[in-house]
Amino acid sequence: MTKTLFLDDLAVGQRFASTTSVTLTEADIIAYAKQFDPQPFHTDPEAAKSTFFGGLAASGWHTAALSMRLLVDSSLHIAGGHIGAGGEISWPRPTRPGDTLRVVYEIVEVKPSKSRPDRGMITVKAETLNQNDEVVQLFVVKMVVPRKVS
Amino acid sequence: MTKTLFLDDLAVGQRFASTTSVTLTEADIIAYAKQFDPQPFHTDPEAAKSTFFGGLAASGWHTAALSMRLLVDSSLHIAGGHIGAGGEISWPRPTRPGDTLRVVYEIVEVKPSKSRPDRGMITVKAETLNQNDEVVQLFVVKMVVPRKVS
Repeated sequence: MTKTLFLDDLAVGQRFASTTSVTLTEADIIAYAKQFDPQPFHTDPEAAKSTFFGGLAASGWHTAALSMRLLVDSSLHIAGGHIGAGGEISWPRPTRPGDTLRVVYEIVEVKPSKSRPDRGMITVKAETLNQNDEVVQLFVVKMVVPRKVS
Repeated sequence: MTKTLFLDDLAVGQRFASTTSVTLTEADIIAYAKQFDPQPFHTDPEAAKSTFFGGLAASGWHTAALSMRLLVDSSLHIAGGHIGAGGEISWPRPTRPGDTLRVVYEIVEVKPSKSRPDRGMITVKAETLNQNDEVVQLFVVKMVVPRKVS
């Protein structure tokens, strides 16, 4: 069962996980990249071999988009929705065709707003992992979270 | 005319700009969000009115993806392609239906690798602007750039 969480329900150290996973095909990677990141290492499996990536790799933004989808589908239901103000993102290794992704979350900061008593900000460390438990994306994100109306 | 740039061609303070722009429709925003970020403020113009955003807003990842496309299509041609290792991303204001986006870039750091003489890292501040010159995304990104083979 999922529960809708307010700022008051969240504490540093709490962990969550995506409740679904997603597997990317070569065709998925190429289709996304043709639209948004048309570079040979994302669109052409042959040409990709002689690039930095040594083979076809998903656009980092594709990994980010799929990670977002896994969050929305997860059991981490924040009241008012998942509203990211921004954060630090990195891609320690590429996402490859056939990879199956899931995400694990840890709350690293909970901060009520000083000026707005109805909300606060949390910082979440979200690690997107492949089927070998290797991190393909690390996103440390600040999210706006409402407080319980008392 | 575009020129392919190596680490040796880049210096702190250099500025570039996207050479195209992109206008998002309501349908574009909804289609992207249905696939990757299916939350009411990104998919349902009516329901969006009573949310944090006060109306339909593009997923931040949609803004990021379009900003990437503008970079690939721009005159900033980095040898070996645009390979982002990671960075700090934020969305100071939402991207709305009808917005026209462009990106301006500034090189803020150029750092040859100590261990790999064939490459280095640059830090680029990329601001995605709407038609009113308001920043809808700020991305300060580290990119891998090859050095000239001498």
